[in-house]
Amino acid sequence: MTDAGVLYSGGKDSSLAAIMLGTLYEVELNTFTFDPARPLPSVEAAARSLGFPMKRRVFPRGTLDEAADRVIRDGFPNTAINQVHRIAVESLCNEYEVVADGTRFNDRVPMLTRAEVQSLEGRTGSSYVRPLLGFTRREVDRFADRFLLVRHGETGTIPNGDYETEIREACRIRGIDCGTLFPQNHDQSLVIGRKTAF
Amino acid sequence: MTDAGVLYSGGKDSSLAAIMLGTLYEVELNTFTFDPARPLPSVEAAARSLGFPMKRRVFPRGTLDEAADRVIRDGFPNTAINQVHRIAVESLCNEYEVVADGTRFNDRVPMLTRAEVQSLEGRTGSSYVRPLLGFTRREVDRFADRFLLVRHGETGTIPNGDYETEIREACRIRGIDCGTLFPQNHDQSLVIGRKTAF
Repeated sequence: MTDAGVLYSGGKDSSLAAIMLGTLYEVELNTFTFDPARPLPSVEAAARSLGFPMKRRVFPRGTLDEAADRVIRDGFPNTAINQVHRIAVESLCNEYEVVADGTRFNDRVPMLTRAEVQSLEGRTGSSYVRPLLGFTRREVDRFADRFLLVRHGETGTIPNGDYETEIREACRIRGIDCGTLFPQNHDQSLVIGRKTAF
Repeated sequence: MTDAGVLYSGGKDSSLAAIMLGTLYEVELNTFTFDPARPLPSVEAAARSLGFPMKRRVFPRGTLDEAADRVIRDGFPNTAINQVHRIAVESLCNEYEVVADGTRFNDRVPMLTRAEVQSLEGRTGSSYVRPLLGFTRREVDRFADRFLLVRHGETGTIPNGDYETEIREACRIRGIDCGTLFPQNHDQSLVIGRKTAF
């Protein structure tokens, strides 16, 4: 089967994307951090529970500073998170014929536009796929209930591999109050087990 | 498992959508025609080759005339085909908790907008899912090569259950030259067998 590199946070959506692709491709999970020393024991445990190999990836130096600058300049995190996500997707396109993530129909960020997807595929020659894109919230929740054991909580309380935790920390180090820049009650999830064979 | 009603033409895309959903839901195929007497032996054979039950559905009287009027008034078929597709989706929402179709990322028509999907789900209480929406052409073609035996040809030469054949015929009966209204070289497909177990 063709290799697919799935961008993986340990959360519900990227876990379901990996499970769905596991019947179509040879899946490898890829978790990006800014800090190469950031420990990711919970994400590694989530990956093991899915039964897919996981690779740790590190963003180029400077990416975190640029992202924090952007959040502070914009006053909101969406553009910065989209930029960081595009860097992650494009970097995997250099290694895999197929690159995937857990973007759902209802997501606003990160979300590549149609033009960005076409440009990415044209430039890299890889396919970029989003197995959950055609599913609305209720169906994604239904799959999560059926296949996964999940812990929920707000950003910062859940040790998954999302980009937001490190970008918030970078803003905080600069003395910026993240409460005003990032949305409140941003629900994060962490997979802590798999319920049944798919 | 939850029942899912899949809009089914016998073509490659709706067949792949059904196969992908078959691991997540109890799938029933639904093929709509305007004419209740239109024979669909090739579509029924395609459905049998996938191993899913198929139901024949008929559009309300008047739907075909309205669609033909619209194509002739507009000078192009897209709006009419979208309207017809919405009628089909909405009618299945009265019968199934989950309704699906074979819309792909690269499709222009039929394509429900984000607002239309949200409105549909709010009105009917059903979920509308599009398992191929997150996959670009190369990956859909890859799945088709792997799972399906497919015949290709232009509209009218391939006996699948698409809306276009009957709308073209209705325009022709009114003396309208369809060649000027419908795009040339519109590739249609018909599944004639399944290659391997999914």
